[in-house]
Amino acid sequence: MQRYKLTIEFDGRGYVGMQAQSSGPTIQAALEAAIDGYCQTDVRIAAAGRTDAGVHAKAMVVHCDLPRGDAPDKVMAALNAHLRPHPIAVLKAQAVSDQFHARFDCTRRRYGYRIVTRRAPLTFDKGLAWRLAFPLDLPAMQRAARCLIGKHDFTTFRHVHCQAKSPIKTLETLDVVADREGLWINAAARSFLHSQVRSMVGCLSLVGRGKWQPEDVKRALEAKDRSALGFNAPPDGLYFMGADYPASLQSR
Amino acid sequence: MQRYKLTIEFDGRGYVGMQAQSSGPTIQAALEAAIDGYCQTDVRIAAAGRTDAGVHAKAMVVHCDLPRGDAPDKVMAALNAHLRPHPIAVLKAQAVSDQFHARFDCTRRRYGYRIVTRRAPLTFDKGLAWRLAFPLDLPAMQRAARCLIGKHDFTTFRHVHCQAKSPIKTLETLDVVADREGLWINAAARSFLHSQVRSMVGCLSLVGRGKWQPEDVKRALEAKDRSALGFNAPPDGLYFMGADYPASLQSR
Repeated sequence: MQRYKLTIEFDGRGYVGMQAQSSGPTIQAALEAAIDGYCQTDVRIAAAGRTDAGVHAKAMVVHCDLPRGDAPDKVMAALNAHLRPHPIAVLKAQAVSDQFHARFDCTRRRYGYRIVTRRAPLTFDKGLAWRLAFPLDLPAMQRAARCLIGKHDFTTFRHVHCQAKSPIKTLETLDVVADREGLWINAAARSFLHSQVRSMVGCLSLVGRGKWQPEDVKRALEAKDRSALGFNAPPDGLYFMGADYPASLQSR
Repeated sequence: MQRYKLTIEFDGRGYVGMQAQSSGPTIQAALEAAIDGYCQTDVRIAAAGRTDAGVHAKAMVVHCDLPRGDAPDKVMAALNAHLRPHPIAVLKAQAVSDQFHARFDCTRRRYGYRIVTRRAPLTFDKGLAWRLAFPLDLPAMQRAARCLIGKHDFTTFRHVHCQAKSPIKTLETLDVVADREGLWINAAARSFLHSQVRSMVGCLSLVGRGKWQPEDVKRALEAKDRSALGFNAPPDGLYFMGADYPASLQSR
């Protein structure tokens, strides 16, 4: 058996999420079927993060143990061939130690949320961004985002079905960055509560629109109450952007 | 009757092209159906350019005469509502003089061709870029592109079904520009022959790969012979980027 770390990109439209569910197609099931096609073996993968239905990934990290000790480049090419026609691609494969665990060893998860501001409906990016028809006040959103950085009780920004033991998380990064078509909101933390990024983005959008002041986000946080939430942003704009690991666990 | 100039974006996957065809869905038919839905009238549009099956547009320009003299913003919103669920959007509507003609007055057509260089299959951009699995020699492609700029007989780069009277065209721009994922090839001219951009891109890709030298592109041009063509690039990466008009014909 050889353990491989795989970096995966996927278009989440048409999937109910990363992880195995009772119903609907998942990224995990597509990957496990591709591994089965390649190695004729029933393998379970472990992923750095869960994602909801319709959420995308530019660099999800998973690991799996394969009975064949093929070179990483061959593993990548073979899995990509077996993944067709899914919009899922293995960007990178690395042979790693049996100690490496994509979920438990992850020290930082990075998410990006893409907002396109324009009046016209989306064409190329339908389902790949959240379109808002009005301009956003970027500096106000940036001020509001700073209220959320650090160690807090994020109960307000937690999905009712969240299974985390504690609502206390340490948000390392929450940047609001303009781009040509709108903006990206970039978030990083060791771990997030279920729906935390989309909940934070929903509140920031209210600030951007001028319906909330930056201080209202602080007030919502301090309320520690889900009903204080502005609203959840849709999954369309959410991307899992990367997972970080201790240098000692990198590929061998 | 009021004439409107419309700037249109469309995802060409699933369409046989811009203009009315004997079979298959066209962008023109979708637009005319949306106008009919909005104005209950059978209107013909005229477009700055034709596009082949699977080719996209970031800013195609069309004009049409509508029996209602609605404000341009209202025209844009109404047409976008009636275009649903097509991946076609009106980005801009302008009231123009009856003299304005989207096709005949156009003084410059601009195309962009997007190449993504990576080993993994495309996910988000499947059908929206040409993927090449090998690195490209950008300076060599830039040298080769310069051979094609100017007034030439482009017979080599002309589709066998091209209906243009003359194969002589003046290519104003042919830039090869690196981006984060690969490169864009930008072309501009008053008009192009059928398949000219994809034919030029095909030859430039051979240069980028090292199969052709930049001088081979010059030799192919001078051969004035379709059989001297390297090959046609696929429609996936081609975008109609914009149409320019004399300032005197701008919106009134």
